[in-house]
Parts: sequence; C-alpha cells; structure tokens
Amino acid sequence: MGVTINCDMGEGFGLYQCGDDAGLMPHVDIANVACGFHASDPSVMRSTVRLAAEHGVAVGAHPSFPDRQGFGRREMAMERDELAACLIYQIGALRGFLDEAGLALNHIKPHGALYGAAMRHEHVAHAIADAAAVFGVPLLGMRGTLQERVYTERGVTFLAEYYADLDYDGEGRLIITRKHDARDPEEAARRVTRMLREHKATTVDGTSIDMRAETVCVHSDTPGAVELARAVQQSVREFS
Amino acid sequence: MGVTINCDMGEGFGLYQCGDDAGLMPHVDIANVACGFHASDPSVMRSTVRLAAEHGVAVGAHPSFPDRQGFGRREMAMERDELAACLIYQIGALRGFLDEAGLALNHIKPHGALYGAAMRHEHVAHAIADAAAVFGVPLLGMRGTLQERVYTERGVTFLAEYYADLDYDGEGRLIITRKHDARDPEEAARRVTRMLREHKATTVDGTSIDMRAETVCVHSDTPGAVELARAVQQSVREFS
Amino acid sequence: MGVTINCDMGEGFGLYQCGDDAGLMPHVDIANVACGFHASDPSVMRSTVRLAAEHGVAVGAHPSFPDRQGFGRREMAMERDELAACLIYQIGALRGFLDEAGLALNHIKPHGALYGAAMRHEHVAHAIADAAAVFGVPLLGMRGTLQERVYTERGVTFLAEYYADLDYDGEGRLIITRKHDARDPEEAARRVTRMLREHKATTVDGTSIDMRAETVCVHSDTPGAVELARAVQQSVREFS
Amino acid sequence: MGVTINCDMGEGFGLYQCGDDAGLMPHVDIANVACGFHASDPSVMRSTVRLAAEHGVAVGAHPSFPDRQGFGRREMAMERDELAACLIYQIGALRGFLDEAGLALNHIKPHGALYGAAMRHEHVAHAIADAAAVFGVPLLGMRGTLQERVYTERGVTFLAEYYADLDYDGEGRLIITRKHDARDPEEAARRVTRMLREHKATTVDGTSIDMRAETVCVHSDTPGAVELARAVQQSVREFS
Repeated sequence: MGVTINCDMGEGFGLYQCGDDAGLMPHVDIANVACGFHASDPSVMRSTVRLAAEHGVAVGAHPSFPDRQGFGRREMAMERDELAACLIYQIGALRGFLDEAGLALNHIKPHGALYGAAMRHEHVAHAIADAAAVFGVPLLGMRGTLQERVYTERGVTFLAEYYADLDYDGEGRLIITRKHDARDPEEAARRVTRMLREHKATTVDGTSIDMRAETVCVHSDTPGAVELARAVQQSVREFS
Repeated sequence: MGVTINCDMGEGFGLYQCGDDAGLMPHVDIANVACGFHASDPSVMRSTVRLAAEHGVAVGAHPSFPDRQGFGRREMAMERDELAACLIYQIGALRGFLDEAGLALNHIKPHGALYGAAMRHEHVAHAIADAAAVFGVPLLGMRGTLQERVYTERGVTFLAEYYADLDYDGEGRLIITRKHDARDPEEAARRVTRMLREHKATTVDGTSIDMRAETVCVHSDTPGAVELARAVQQSVREFS
Repeated sequence: MGVTINCDMGEGFGLYQCGDDAGLMPHVDIANVACGFHASDPSVMRSTVRLAAEHGVAVGAHPSFPDRQGFGRREMAMERDELAACLIYQIGALRGFLDEAGLALNHIKPHGALYGAAMRHEHVAHAIADAAAVFGVPLLGMRGTLQERVYTERGVTFLAEYYADLDYDGEGRLIITRKHDARDPEEAARRVTRMLREHKATTVDGTSIDMRAETVCVHSDTPGAVELARAVQQSVREFS
Repeated sequence: MGVTINCDMGEGFGLYQCGDDAGLMPHVDIANVACGFHASDPSVMRSTVRLAAEHGVAVGAHPSFPDRQGFGRREMAMERDELAACLIYQIGALRGFLDEAGLALNHIKPHGALYGAAMRHEHVAHAIADAAAVFGVPLLGMRGTLQERVYTERGVTFLAEYYADLDYDGEGRLIITRKHDARDPEEAARRVTRMLREHKATTVDGTSIDMRAETVCVHSDTPGAVELARAVQQSVREFS
C-alpha cells in the first residue's frame, strides 16, 4: 500500500480508557492491537477489532512481555522458547477476534520493552521471528538493528518504521519512554515529510541521520494524538 | 470416529505439574487442552499440543472462567458478551499452537464452573455457542441440559459426554468436585461398557438412569488416571 | 468524629488514572483505599497512602474479589475460608504502606460485588468479619442488611453508610452499577442534609425511606466527583 | 538462636502442591514463606503460617518479582521505587496472616531472580532494604556481595546464608537454577559441618573457599528434601 501509518490501539483495560481510538481510526492505515499482556482484555480486543473493521483499517498484533502493571515497558529475562510461546499465545488470541470480524492478521509489531529487547538480544529477535513464522505475516521494526537482521535472515518480511512522535538519540536509536509527551502536529508532519522525501531524520543532538521507512508510527497515548495523526496523514498523502 | 475418549490435558502451570499427560495420551482420542485461564501457560500449551500431535490425538480447547487460583472451579458472574470474548481469546490462543503443529481445532469443551454454569444459565450457554460459532467446531457437553438445547438451537454440533470417573446424583446431574477421588479402573470400565451397550448409568442413589454419549471423559488429575484410561479404552474398543 | 465523608480512592492501575484523588482529598475524612485486587497496584497504593497522610485523611482498606478486569464488580463463588484469606492478604498489604507512612488502619469497606454479596450471603459477611477481627477495625456497610446483622453479632464495630451519589430502589436497596453517572452536586448535598436532619432518603420510586448513617460515601469515579464532594462536605459541616 | 536452618515454604498455588512442608517443618528453624508473587496464594499462605506456628517455626517473608509463571526466576527491570512498593505489598500481606496466628515477622529473604539481582544491581539491593526498614526485620543474603554491603550500610541486620543443596561456582557465587536437583543428604550434611567448623566450602571446580553463615538454607522443592533437611539439622545440632 505504499507508506502506511501505524498506530498502537486497544490499550485500555476493563473500565480504564487509553487513547482516543475512535478519533484515530480515520487517520491510520494499520492498527497494532494490544493482546492483553501489557494492556487490553478480551472485551477491549473484540471492540477494537470491530472498530478497525468499520474503518477499513488492517489489524496487526501488538504482543508484549507479560507485564500489565508496567504496561510492557519493563524488560523481562525470558528464554527464546518461553518467549516465542508467550507471543504465539497473544497473537493467536487476537486472531480469534479477527476471524469473528472476517479480517486476516496483517502484521506483528512487538510492544515496548520487547521491541527494545529485540534490538539488543538475538534470542529475543529469534523468538519474535518464531512467532511470525507461525502466522506468516510481516514484522514491523527498526531498520539497521538486530531486528532487521534476524527477521530477514529468517525469511520474515521486515517493514521499517519511522516514529513521528518519539525522539532519536545521537546514534539514531529510538528513545523509548514510559509516558509519551505532547508533540506539535505540524512539526511531526514536517519530520515525516522530510523522512519521506529526503530519507533523513534529525536526532535530539540536532544531527541528521539516514531514515527510510515503509510505515510511520503514531502513538494513541500521546497527548493530542488525533491532531498529530491527522497532520501526519496529510504528509503521507501528499507524498504518495 | 464412533465413541471417543476425551481427557482434560495440559493443566500444569509453570513449574507445577498436573496429571500424567504423557502416560494418558496413548489411551485417549481427543484432548481438551487448558488455555491458560484456569491452568496452563503458553509454554505448557505448546508442549501439550506437540505431545498430542505425536500421539495422533485430536485437540480441542478447554476454556474457563478467568480463575487460575480456583482452577476455574468458582463460578463468576460474567455477562454474555464479556464471557464470549473471554472464550474467543482462549480458544484463539490455543489455535496458534495448533497452527504451529499443523493441527486443526477439533472441538471446544468448557471447563469446570463454566461447564456447570452452562447447564443453569442461558446467557452462559449462549456465550459458549457464540465462541463455538466463530471457530466452527463442535461443543462437548451434558445431554438433556440447557447446554444441549442452546447449542443445538444455535446450530452448533453437540457431542454428549459420559463421565467415567465422576458420579451422577439422583436427578442424573453430574457431581463436579474441586478435587477428584481415585476410582477403581475395572468399575469405571464396567460403567462405560454398560453405558455403551445398555445406554444406562447408575447414580449415587443406586438408581438407573438413561445415558447416551458420543464421548467418554476421563480426568488426568484423578489418582490412577492412566490405569483408569487404559481400562476405559479397552471397554470402548470392545464395543466398537 | 461525628458523621464522616468516605471515598473510594487509589483506583488507578499502572499508567491508568481513575478519579481525581488529589482534588478529592481535601473534601473527605476517610479514604477507602483499593488493595490491588479490583484496581490499584503497590505503587499506586503507596502514593495514595502518602497523599492521604499529607491531607490528614484516615485510611481504610477497600478489598475486593480477585477481579481486576471486572473492577471487582462481578460476583465470584468463593468459600468463606478462601475469601477471608483473600481479604486478610489485601488488607495486610495495605497496612504495610500505612506502617511506612506512620498511619494506623482505620476501617475496612468491602468493594463492589463483594459489598453486595455480603448483603445476600451469610458466609460472605462472615468472611469479611473474619478479616476485620484479625485487624481489629470497624466495617463500613449498609444498615438493616445481613452486613449489619453478621458484623454486629460477631462483635465487629459497624458503621452505616449513606450513598450521596447512588440511587436506592423501592425496597431501600442500593443500586450498584458498573459505571457511575454524573450527579448534580446541589441535589446530592440536599439529599445528605435531609438524611442527616430527618433521617430520610428518597428512592428511585419517589417514596421516602428511613436512613441513618455514620458516614456518607462519595465516589471518585463519578463525573464531577470533586464538586460533588465539596457540596456534600458543606452539608456535613453545617450539620455538625 | 545460633546457626539456624531456613527453608522456602508455602510454594504451592491453588490445587498445585510444591514441596513437603509438613514433612520439613520439624527439621527447620525459620521458614521463608512465599507471598503470592512467584508462588502461593492467600489460602496457601494462611495454612503455611498456621503450620509453622504449630511447629514453633519462625516465619519470614519470601517476596519475589511479580512472575508467577516463571516462579520468580526471571529477572525484571523494575525501578527502585516500584520494586520497594512491590515488596512492601507482599510482606505486608504475609504479616496479616502472622497477626492472625499471633506471630511476629521474623525476617525477609528475597526469592529467586530478585535474590540474584540484589547481588548485581545496587538499586535492587536498596529497594529490598527500603522494604526491610519499613518492617524492622533482618535480611537473609549472601556474604561478601552487594547484598551485605548495601543492607549493612543502610543499618539493616544482615544474616549470611550457606546453601546446603546448591552449588557454588569457582568465584564462590551461588549457582541458581530453575529446578533443583536431588542431593545426597549425607554429603550435604558433611558440607554443612565443614562450613560450621572450618568456615570453608567446596566449589564445583573443587577449590576451597571461605564460607561463614548465620543460617543454612535447604530447599523444599529439592527431591528428597525432608531427608536432606533431617541430615543438615543433625549437623547443625552437633555443632551447637
């Protein structure tokens, strides 16, 4: 589909709300839907999948370390086999709701600390690839990292992301935070346009780095997320 | 397949063992595999599915109320929608491991208090049928109860069970206990033979009731479960 | 202390917020602090206890059935012994944070479905009294119900509540809902004043019932909770 | 009390058994009782505390990372504050059952991966000391490690352990395994006697290292744990 906009969705839990999914759906192409291990529960997953289906948004799984209290942002020492099983469980659970809604699983994007760990630990990247191989779908991740190397070596389709609402450090590494700060939508849109046209991004140090991506990520729990997504959507449409 | 033997399997959790699954597999036809809500975890599910695949045993889902401490034997007041979602989640999770092993989902059998609640509460039986409809597989249950009526009204294939290792009360109702007591294998085998040939069972009151079943259940956590399953298997084979 | 205002507090979880505890603290006398089984986690409990200590608000435990997804609003079939243990666990956990803050445990108020179950099931009321006896503190509850009878028979001090922001049905029973609707603060204040002066309340049917209470409850998750608490506080102060 | 024998107890969960606590109690002095985060549940905690009380065994808390599936043997990246809160919660919960049984909290011993992490990460050792300071009890740990240094700097009483049923590597570090292998009771007893008399232990490399301890640990989930504890008890009694 050309460059897509992806967004983490369905991160509420029970009575707790998280993010304006209904407001965001019109502005994204693919939704990374939480699977109950860092956020969400079966009811939230079911309604999130239905909401995506209504908006024609493709649905991927957004599995996590088993850490609901820490929102999946605390790394856990798990071996490859138990981690792969943990991911197959979550992705399979989501696919039940996709079947009900008549949708196919579109992709997998590891969440939070798991995403970060897959850049540092080979066995983590392999566990993720193990799960992706079972479901036969692409993995979203960071270009130039262990993620890309392991996934592609394993024959799993890799789709590189650019983060419209997070910063990159001087070495071009994504800075993952527990809470996301508000961003100026126009600035985020300009960053995306630059990445799409010039294949460049600016780090927190002010230096320019190479950046190519098949998909642009916006977060639903960033304050002002809908406005930001709308602005980024405009950038991506103008480019396409 | 004619009359089958079904058995709850994969009910360990983490380091905890429960039942001699490896010893039982040669003596059963279909395994009801726990889905992590009353017992099991992703690693146990994965290895249980693999074990079943090695023995040519068909695998069904054994979903539960979300109650790991109570082993799913404590009823919870859940509405139809949230219960259906809870079941789709569990069954979908199991199917991930079936995909990995190249197996199809064979059936669904609700566990413990959920099984009992489906005999008393229409909305519970409907929630179970909702989940079965998503996956298009038969439901195991108790003939002559709300289970059979609701499932068949909904167009879901219903397979009646006979319990080789549990008692029936004077009204022909199954007596569900938190722990299962040891049974004499020969007596269990005789009960199964009688049910198969005469379509009769004896209650705890000593009276005779009608009993027809497509599948005979043996429990893995009954003391002496392997010997009991072997004896019941002999009865079923002699009948077939 | 005369009539007090009590409020459920500390019902966030991880990154999820619930209720404006900081805004409410100045307007309440005693806080019912969630203990991690329907809401909250150790970090939220710790900061809630600190917040209460800063405002001179007395802290009680607000234990629940183990049901985080359902916010403790789904009844579970638990036996007296296992329920009592479940409550002692939660209350003990809270008391660790009270020790750290130099506070004593003030009272216990069962949450949600547990509160309701204690009006209908004798073994539930006894399990709650078992826990209160361990800690030697009063129990909050509904006058004229099984709660009052069992608690007082057991020698546990009983403090009756009036709900400023929930309705009572024609038989004078509290209507417990999963979500709380917004209330007019002035109307709530008038209801409280009437209860305090005339010992009367109005049901949803418009009839008048007797109502006496040692403590008035306001909920933190009612929309406009701070304004409502402020108005109720004014009523209680004028009466005292 | 001179040198004591300590043992992890109460590590069952729901229907799952773990270790022969009743068989072990006569042979130990102090029990490290699981607090529900790596094993146990409120009912198991209550009955374990009662069992200890019957045998005159002193009870300490055995808190863990929140990881029931991994039996607390998987390290988690938790910050000092959230970890301290997590520990205060668990220890406080246990103390509720101690109150009921008329016992005081005797000590704290971190479990599994938490115990290991406190030897490598200063913030982990501090979080543990934070919790111990709230309850005013000694901490069990490994002499010559970060545990001893941080705990004693913080003014918390430190009691060094010797492990009768685990191995030490060439650098004198304890080798922590997910499952514990069977040990020869007589050999374990000889190791303990040597440690008590000569203050020496033998590593897996066959070298001799200095080893002094105030308490000797035996595990309840080691095969043959009761025989091993009985033999070690004999060694300790002969020495005293």
